[in-house]
Amino acid sequence: MNTKTREYTKEKIIEGVKLGITGVNGLMAEGRGEIFDLLVGEDISPPTMKSIKAAVASLILSEHPVISVNGNTAAILPKDLVLLSKELNVPLEVNLFYRTEERVGRIVEHLKKNGALVVLGERKKSIRLKEIDHARGIVDERGIYGADTVLLALEDGDRTKKLKDMGKTTIAIELNPFSRTARDASITIIGNVVSVIPEMTRCARVMKRTERGELERLVEEFKNEGTLHDQMRTMAKNMRDLITFNLNPGKEFLS
Amino acid sequence: MNTKTREYTKEKIIEGVKLGITGVNGLMAEGRGEIFDLLVGEDISPPTMKSIKAAVASLILSEHPVISVNGNTAAILPKDLVLLSKELNVPLEVNLFYRTEERVGRIVEHLKKNGALVVLGERKKSIRLKEIDHARGIVDERGIYGADTVLLALEDGDRTKKLKDMGKTTIAIELNPFSRTARDASITIIGNVVSVIPEMTRCARVMKRTERGELERLVEEFKNEGTLHDQMRTMAKNMRDLITFNLNPGKEFLS
Repeated sequence: MNTKTREYTKEKIIEGVKLGITGVNGLMAEGRGEIFDLLVGEDISPPTMKSIKAAVASLILSEHPVISVNGNTAAILPKDLVLLSKELNVPLEVNLFYRTEERVGRIVEHLKKNGALVVLGERKKSIRLKEIDHARGIVDERGIYGADTVLLALEDGDRTKKLKDMGKTTIAIELNPFSRTARDASITIIGNVVSVIPEMTRCARVMKRTERGELERLVEEFKNEGTLHDQMRTMAKNMRDLITFNLNPGKEFLS
Repeated sequence: MNTKTREYTKEKIIEGVKLGITGVNGLMAEGRGEIFDLLVGEDISPPTMKSIKAAVASLILSEHPVISVNGNTAAILPKDLVLLSKELNVPLEVNLFYRTEERVGRIVEHLKKNGALVVLGERKKSIRLKEIDHARGIVDERGIYGADTVLLALEDGDRTKKLKDMGKTTIAIELNPFSRTARDASITIIGNVVSVIPEMTRCARVMKRTERGELERLVEEFKNEGTLHDQMRTMAKNMRDLITFNLNPGKEFLS
């Protein structure tokens, strides 16, 4: 159990509400995440590490990668998003499920306060994607619109699928391996953003110097479905341990 | 999967935010509940039915029972709470984790609009329980303060334990069988309030006419721990089915 990570995330989400950048749906998503966080167990499990490496390789190899940011990620770890963006030289773009221009503005402001130089996603430079029936279809022409690879942290299912259908490589950070996002993304990283994003930055630092052929091999050999199934089996095991612990409270449970 | 129940609950919780009766913590609790709702499977499983019967028997036998209501339950099913209260002749009392007098007032108002004649819990008649370090320690002298049995729907763990330590019979409606509330309550009903409360009302209608000895037997023979363990085993099975379905998507999963 990652009680510390979880408490931190929760605290930041509540601060996000006060800042006006986290919405009602973000709060419910946080609650769902808490339970998966408990079942997922370790912060960075071996299959998660494999996904992170494939994801970072893919972002380094892409011509126009973008990091899509919503209210929850911006509230939880603005500084780490900025560090990853700088390390990979990949722009941040604000994209919201429940979009209001005010909330987009506040998130852009929040990211800039935390060190971002440029943040995409404000209306003036935006285009509406007809493939996505939603405010989330509004994307920046300098960003997601022309991107070949999009990193999506805590994303909704519809959008992940549509972006993939448009031929983009989609990388999702998710806690629920059963979600549509987890199943539809090209590369799914199962884990808490609080651990995953800084780990991606550490990997990026090293992998930027890795030769191209090696990065291509990492991406090609990555099998999303198999990795997800490994995660599900771990969850089933953690669930059994949790029940064993409850039936025999003396036993240790979850690493 | 109770997709309908869950969608309904979610919709009501969002309305609750607009009415100013559901708070930040209620929204996160709703998200956690969604996942357990998925894992719990059936709305009213056989062990849930057993708990409901013991709970209703206990409420009928009590001298001073009270139904404790918070922002989420009031938002989700105000009418059903009023019906249960009238069927059992048990008063409703508003008790909040994050208490503001305005929010208490709005919830009292909301319950009255939905048919309640009297709702306890407003400050003027309240006493602070030294045993509970929190706004939740503020209880109505006509209600929880003198009660022998308290029905708690969607309650926090601290309070459930303290009320039980004070010698009260605590009945909890919960979706998470691992929660402190589930473990500490005298009778835990694992299920969604949307299904459980109306089922309690139906049982109350019949059981009010059941003879006292039979009701006493139902309460005495009820074993909370064993019933919770049955629920956990069902959850583990549902989890395995969910994973099997994901590994072999053709298969049916969860009833």
